[in-house]
Amino acid sequence: MIETDILIIGAGPTGLFAVFEAGLLQLKCHLIDALPQPGGQCTEIYPKKPIYDIPGFPEVLAGELVDNLMEQIKPFQPGFTLGERAETIEKMEDGSFVVTTNKGTRHHAPIVAIAGGLGSFEPRKPLLQNINDYEEKGIAYFIKDPEIYRDKKVVIAGGGDSALDWSIFLTDVASEVTLVHRRNEFRGALDSVEKLQQLKNQGKINLITPAEIVELQGRDLLEAVLIRKTTNGDDDIRLAVDYFIPLFGLSPKLGPIADWGLEIEKNAIKVDNTLDYQTNIPGIYAIGDVNTYPGKLKLILCGFHEATLMCQSAYQRIFPDKKYVMKYTTVGGVQGFDGSKKEAPKAVVKTID
Amino acid sequence: MIETDILIIGAGPTGLFAVFEAGLLQLKCHLIDALPQPGGQCTEIYPKKPIYDIPGFPEVLAGELVDNLMEQIKPFQPGFTLGERAETIEKMEDGSFVVTTNKGTRHHAPIVAIAGGLGSFEPRKPLLQNINDYEEKGIAYFIKDPEIYRDKKVVIAGGGDSALDWSIFLTDVASEVTLVHRRNEFRGALDSVEKLQQLKNQGKINLITPAEIVELQGRDLLEAVLIRKTTNGDDDIRLAVDYFIPLFGLSPKLGPIADWGLEIEKNAIKVDNTLDYQTNIPGIYAIGDVNTYPGKLKLILCGFHEATLMCQSAYQRIFPDKKYVMKYTTVGGVQGFDGSKKEAPKAVVKTID
Ligand SMILES: Cc1cc2nc3c(=O)[nH]c(=O)nc-3n(C[C@H](O)[C@H](O)[C@H](O)COP(=O)(O)OP(=O)(O)OC[C@H]3O[C@@H](n4cnc5c(N)ncnc54)[C@H](O)[C@@H]3O)c2cc1C
Ligand SMILES: Cc1cc2nc3c(=O)[nH]c(=O)nc-3n(C[C@H](O)[C@H](O)[C@H](O)COP(=O)(O)OP(=O)(O)OC[C@H]3O[C@@H](n4cnc5c(N)ncnc54)[C@H](O)[C@@H]3O)c2cc1C
Repeated sequence: MIETDILIIGAGPTGLFAVFEAGLLQLKCHLIDALPQPGGQCTEIYPKKPIYDIPGFPEVLAGELVDNLMEQIKPFQPGFTLGERAETIEKMEDGSFVVTTNKGTRHHAPIVAIAGGLGSFEPRKPLLQNINDYEEKGIAYFIKDPEIYRDKKVVIAGGGDSALDWSIFLTDVASEVTLVHRRNEFRGALDSVEKLQQLKNQGKINLITPAEIVELQGRDLLEAVLIRKTTNGDDDIRLAVDYFIPLFGLSPKLGPIADWGLEIEKNAIKVDNTLDYQTNIPGIYAIGDVNTYPGKLKLILCGFHEATLMCQSAYQRIFPDKKYVMKYTTVGGVQGFDGSKKEAPKAVVKTID
Repeated sequence: MIETDILIIGAGPTGLFAVFEAGLLQLKCHLIDALPQPGGQCTEIYPKKPIYDIPGFPEVLAGELVDNLMEQIKPFQPGFTLGERAETIEKMEDGSFVVTTNKGTRHHAPIVAIAGGLGSFEPRKPLLQNINDYEEKGIAYFIKDPEIYRDKKVVIAGGGDSALDWSIFLTDVASEVTLVHRRNEFRGALDSVEKLQQLKNQGKINLITPAEIVELQGRDLLEAVLIRKTTNGDDDIRLAVDYFIPLFGLSPKLGPIADWGLEIEKNAIKVDNTLDYQTNIPGIYAIGDVNTYPGKLKLILCGFHEATLMCQSAYQRIFPDKKYVMKYTTVGGVQGFDGSKKEAPKAVVKTID
């Protein structure tokens, strides 16, 4: 059982910044995310796109923002359960909570902060009869650790940024990369599309378009796929592969959280009058894109504010008898759980003679 | 009469960021500040100190943060009335407001956003009988434009960062710099104190300590000051000067705003239930350190959020019939009033052959 002070569901920008604010209050955090990496929408959907409305950044790439946040929270050593979806919640007798993921990992904390954004990102799966049988046996919807594909035969399906970028990346890792797309046109960053053309010309990638995968074969593990060209009556192509990675995008689903007894409105969790973003269940908070209240804006900078107020309230719940006096970071410094300390250079008092 | 859409009182980080959010909604802003430069507490009190809790910045100097904000809002060409204190407000028949400063500058806008922080920064003045008579005639409490002191004789009083930094700076500008302080010890950044010692050793600055200015002399303009050593019975020193600049620090005073009919609590302006940070007078908002509500934290990141929600509400007041549909900056780009346009590189759709 993983134990922590604040269990954060969702490692998007809001959840990540909550770790920092909790850390200032000497509270430890652990984050669960269905995605294999932190950053939420920023990392999954638009890591290379600029954001212009983060205060103090005239321009910052979404991926850079997440890198900065990870750096900022490092002193507070957050724990991560990645690639797992928070599935159920139980309230213990002492008022604390146990949250269990779809893979059975259990987490225990007095406070739960849901920073689930638009919901847990679930892959869009192709409609193939026996696809579920091969999951984790040759089929993957995310690429967690590219090294798994070293010297293997890989087929990727899709025509967007993820399909392009991973196909390009894996040509240096896998022994054979095939990209199958149901159109001739690819949609992505100009340099990715150009790079793909170049790799194709060099014979480093097999491109099969317009086409789709129509069948999966293999006794226990995946062994081959059948590929059908969609414009002619040619016979299906049988391709021996170790892995099939359909990258058809992700769609967020509020999912299991919708059944936790929280008040839901417009597919989001209703919070109190923005005092501390607490839900109808005391001890459970909802911050960032996942919550709703009058005037709510689904913006990153709003999530930062909500996370900050939430942590103050969580502190009061955990330590009802302590009176916390806020200190500016400039004045009090930042004391990491790893023993690190950041602080402003002190003024000196000195006689001039 | 200066005309604008949102008149912002206070050019601290909150007021500055409001310009950006208003700009996204195509609303123009004008800012009034009692200080000669934008940035509020960050620039006036701790420009060279690091802040650690601005989301996305593991560390940023307060002065840098303000520079970044100025850069971020540049496309929206805000107007500034600096070095003047907003003194009175009148409500017009059409519901709009006229705000007049202590120097008589008038501003007219349908919306007023008070981002006044802890109040307008007022200098602590030394207790000298006729000091008011020489204001703008040789006495200054701020340094707006150092060039005024080129080849002049200047006496500065004080022993903190401002007194140190400006004394050092002016040795390169003025013909003669004298620093008077009532103790022998100075309190400031180590390198400033060391630099002062060095300038003194080189004879580039006159240091008179422990001492204070006891009299101002001059017919119309200031011509001389009397300096009294505080440890012995020596005669007062008469020093001919063009300028006397007492730098004894600033203290913020809510000041005239306290008499505008707004609900005040704990020296701050009460706002509604954080829906949009509107005060008890419709059309007047209070954002950043200057407001109070249950759970309020006086943090920069909270001011950013409040400014953002305020602008949405201001837009609805100005255009009650328009339905504003928020667009992410990443998706919609940023359209400056100066004709500039920032936008994310578009995805291409391209055939690979
Ligand atoms: C193309 C695009 C452009 C954008 N541009 C801007 C912009 O310019 N400015 C701006 O402010 N905002 C922008 N946004 C919105 C911004 O990305 C979101 O406001 C922000 O990501 C919200 O952060 P969050 O941490 O609340 O949620 P998210 O980033 O959505 O993260 C939530 C995380 O929670 C996880 N999760 C949810 N439920 C579970 C569960 N049950 N178990 C495990 N994990 C779960 C999800 O997998 C996800 O990783 C943009 C969004 C998009 C898509
Ligand atoms: C030493 C120190 C360290 C700090 N460290 C941190 C930190 O680490 N993190 C953090 O988040 N915050 C920190 N703060 C607090 C932070 O600086 C404030 O929260 C922030 O400056 C508030 O911004 P604001 O724009 O609301 O107000 P301010 O910065 O106070 O600006 C308000 C402006 O309004 C002007 N004004 C007021 N009334 C009038 C009037 N009638 N007419 C004209 N002008 C007027 C004032 O002159 C002032 O310039 C620190 C503060 C100090 C002093």
